Formats: sequence, C-alpha cells, structure tokens
Amino acid sequence: MDIKTYLIDQKKIIEEALTSYMLLANGDFAEHIETMRYSLFAGGKRIRPILCLAAARMVGDKNFDDNTVLPVACALECIHTYSLIHDDLPAMDNDDLRRGKATNHTVYGEAAAILAGDGLQCFAFDLLSSPDFNAIEPQARLKIISIISRAAGPMGMVGGQSLDVTHEGEKIPFELLRTIHRSKTGALITASLLSGCISAGGTKEQCSFINDYGRGIGLAFQIVDDILNVESTAEELGKATGSDARRGKATYPAFFGLEKSKGMAADAVKNAIQALDHFETGTEPLRELALYINNRTN
Amino acid sequence: MDIKTYLIDQKKIIEEALTSYMLLANGDFAEHIETMRYSLFAGGKRIRPILCLAAARMVGDKNFDDNTVLPVACALECIHTYSLIHDDLPAMDNDDLRRGKATNHTVYGEAAAILAGDGLQCFAFDLLSSPDFNAIEPQARLKIISIISRAAGPMGMVGGQSLDVTHEGEKIPFELLRTIHRSKTGALITASLLSGCISAGGTKEQCSFINDYGRGIGLAFQIVDDILNVESTAEELGKATGSDARRGKATYPAFFGLEKSKGMAADAVKNAIQALDHFETGTEPLRELALYINNRTN
Repeated sequence: MDIKTYLIDQKKIIEEALTSYMLLANGDFAEHIETMRYSLFAGGKRIRPILCLAAARMVGDKNFDDNTVLPVACALECIHTYSLIHDDLPAMDNDDLRRGKATNHTVYGEAAAILAGDGLQCFAFDLLSSPDFNAIEPQARLKIISIISRAAGPMGMVGGQSLDVTHEGEKIPFELLRTIHRSKTGALITASLLSGCISAGGTKEQCSFINDYGRGIGLAFQIVDDILNVESTAEELGKATGSDARRGKATYPAFFGLEKSKGMAADAVKNAIQALDHFETGTEPLRELALYINNRTN
Repeated sequence: MDIKTYLIDQKKIIEEALTSYMLLANGDFAEHIETMRYSLFAGGKRIRPILCLAAARMVGDKNFDDNTVLPVACALECIHTYSLIHDDLPAMDNDDLRRGKATNHTVYGEAAAILAGDGLQCFAFDLLSSPDFNAIEPQARLKIISIISRAAGPMGMVGGQSLDVTHEGEKIPFELLRTIHRSKTGALITASLLSGCISAGGTKEQCSFINDYGRGIGLAFQIVDDILNVESTAEELGKATGSDARRGKATYPAFFGLEKSKGMAADAVKNAIQALDHFETGTEPLRELALYINNRTN
C-alpha cells in the first residue's frame, strides 16, 4: 500500500463524516458554531480518527462497517481540535498560526476561541452518546466514553498541557518530560486506537496489544514533533519553528541531541510494529502509519 | 419542611459525594487538580445537583438509593463550575470575585484557569461513564450523557454564553434575551432534573412534566439573577453588583423594569409548581425549591 494515497483517502472519509455530523452554522447559534467549524475544518491531518478507524477495521470482521466507528473517530478529532484552539490562546502558547492558517483567537477573539474549544469538547461527548448512532452496544459505548474522557482529562491530555505550561522554560528531569508527553499527546492517541478496537468488538487481549502499539507511536509522534520544531521550515510545518528552543522548552532534542532522539523515535516505532504481530490480518495500515509518523515532515 | 435546613442537608450530601469522587491533588498532576478543586469546593449553592437528586427521589420508589444518582449530580456540578471559571476569565466577564472568593484566574493565572475549566468539563464525562458506577443501566446512562452534553454544548450552555458575550452592551430584542437565558442557564437546569428522573427509571411522561418544571424554574432563576444584580449588595451576593447595568447588559429589569420582572419570575415559578401536580408523592422538595429560587438573596 502507498501510505500517502491511504492517508488522502482516509482523510476524505473522516472529513465527509465530520461534515455530516457537525452542527451547521445557522440558527441562533450560527456565529458560535462557525468558530468551531473554522478550526475543525482547517486542514488537520486527522491522525487520531484515522488511527481509530484503522484499529476498528483491523479488529472487525469482513462485514465491519466504517459507519459503526465514524462518530467515535470524529469525536476524537473534536477533542483534538479543541485542545489546539486552547493551546494557541495568548495565555498559553500565544500562537498566531496553526497549519498555515490564522489561529482561532486571532480570527474571532479570545472569548470566542475559549468558547469554541469548550463547545467542541462538549460536542465530542454528544457524538459519543447520541441516540442517532446505535451500532455499538451501550456497554461498549460507555466504555469508549470512559476511556476517552480519562485520556483527555486531568490525568491525561489536559493534565499534560497543564504540566507543560507550568514547567515551560524550566530545566525539568527527563521523567517529567516523559509524563508530559504520555499525558499530553500519548493518552489521546492510545485512546483513539482503543476506542476503535472496542467499537469493533475487540477482546481484552486485543485491546492490550493495541495499547502497546499506541504507546509506541504516541512516543514516536511526540519525539518527531520536537525534532520537526528544530529541523523543519515554517513553510513545511505551517507554523513557526525553533520556538521550543527560544522558549527553553524541555524536548527530546534538548535532552539527548537530534541524532539520539531520532534513534529513540525509530525504536518506539519498532516496538509499536511488534505489537501488531499479535493480529492475524489487516495490520498493514497501522504498520505503515507507524512508519509514516516517524518519517513525516509536518 | 424547612427549605433552609433542607438545602444545608442536601448541600452536605452533595459535597460529601464530590469529595469522595473528585481526584486528589497529589501525584504528577497535583497542581492542575488543585486548580479544579479550588473552584469546585469554593462554596457553591449546589443547586443543579440538588435538583437532580430531588427529581430522582421523587420519581424513584421507596428503595431508591441516593448513591445511584450522586455521580450524575456531581458531574453536573463539575460542568457548572467549569462554566463559571471560564465566564470569569479576563477575556469574558473579567470578574475578580465569585462567591466572595478570588476567581480561579486571579489565584492561578489565566492559563491554569482555562485548563481547570477544561479538566472539570472532561472529568464530568468521566464520572458519567465511569465503570466504578453501574447502578444505572447502560442505555439510561447513555441517554443521560446525551442530554447533559446537549444541554451544556454549542446549542445549550456554551452557545448561550457565546451569544451573551457577542451581544454584550447591545440593544437586543427580547426573543434573543430569552434564547440566551434558556440556553445559558435553563438548559443545564432542565438537564439536571431530567438526568435525575432518568437515573431513577422515570417514564417518558414523567420526563416531560419534569421538563416543564425545569423550564419554569430555569426562567425564574435567570430573572432573579438579573434582579439580584440590581438590588442586592456585594456582601449579600459575594460578587460585584450593578455590573449588568454598567455594561449595558440586556436583562429582564432592563426590558420590563423591576416590578414586572418580579411578577414574571413569580409566574414562572407558579407554572413550574403546577407541573408537579402530575406526580403522586414526594413533590414537596421541588415545590419548595421553586419558591426558594424566587425568594433567594444570593
């Protein structure tokens, strides 16, 4: 398979689903909904929903229908997008550009951007619980909501972002950097895979191997993010580069240097791919995705 | 029954439950969790969880156990608290005081306050879906999550807050003011009652009457809020008063004058109490709560 073509195809599937599920910007709440739509349709890579969908297909049988898991996949993208909107705020990273486009608050103002994020997070849980989607049995849906809310919450993504902000510019021990990565980025990536696995009726054992895969690519994803902030150009990345070093941010390259960091990312990807050996068929997309995460340039 | 004693007792039940469910501020995420706990335990009136619990008890049979619904009640308080933290931010209402205490961002800074709100919203959905609580059957739990996420989301509380911010200081038509109230305050109040009703196995018909009750007290609650902003002292209210008028905010008193507004609040309470006629027993707490909402001074 060609990973580039695969990613384009999957992105299209996700964006069609997002388009069909997302609230339309009309009626009394049109302006607010427009602020959410702006960031949701601002050209994201859709990595989390793609991972969710890929895991579900790998675990599901031949009759597995994408529509079973697409609301879950889209909910994950809503959560990811809300976190980016809030991360970019002046009180946080104060970024003007995201994916080459003006950030939410630079277009709509701070108050609207805070609420756009709040609305997107809440809408994610609406999608996850909506009576419009009932292909997944209730007990499994609850489990998915529990996994995602823990991964995105105070001991997961939000907690990681909080640690990141609190310790910005400080010399922190490596263990703390690892905790920040695992919670801020890794937790939601793993939750994306696990929720896909559960959507398709995956067993506890399958969930455990999917979890191993998720930890591997989650780690690789963050190390590569740090590397790109050093090596990439603003044009490639769609946002300012070198900002981590200017802020004195703790990163893998700052701890271990560029070359060793690259080796660590490659090892993490290798571990992730090994976890796929426990699945009989349909592992190629997740295998290629793991390699792609390590080789991406933006 | 004496409503003051009742409220003190119920508040104690809610706060004991919140204390037992809420994450402890230790471990890697201690500082972040502390920012959430600060606002969650800052002396709220706990109206939403009290309504949830009261509705559940009214609908449930004699053997109804409070513990069935307490996680739901506490989730509602987490959502309410997050919305207050974000409402108080400099980019929004820029308030320094809330319930007589320094607002979250004045204590911990803007970034931490944004994340405290984000974490609390997410934690609410963790509570609602947690495998630690399984007294409510999965299908009903999903319905509760759906109702709460819609009430708190882009067409509910967040949407209402967005409209409020967007039109601040503008002369808006009454219909828009009503939409703002229904979405910003009314929706979550109604959802609190409905989720209590569903937790206790309420029928569709019971949910419909509870909904009528909720709309009545939700309206009264907001009108009284507007009135208190004019008539109350800062000491009574625990926050600055007269701020609505200074900001040129559209309020019931601004539209109809104080006396007519008071009459409208009384009518809304009357309608709410009439909806309780459809329940055979245990209506007294909700009846007294409706009257209390109209007579409260803070």
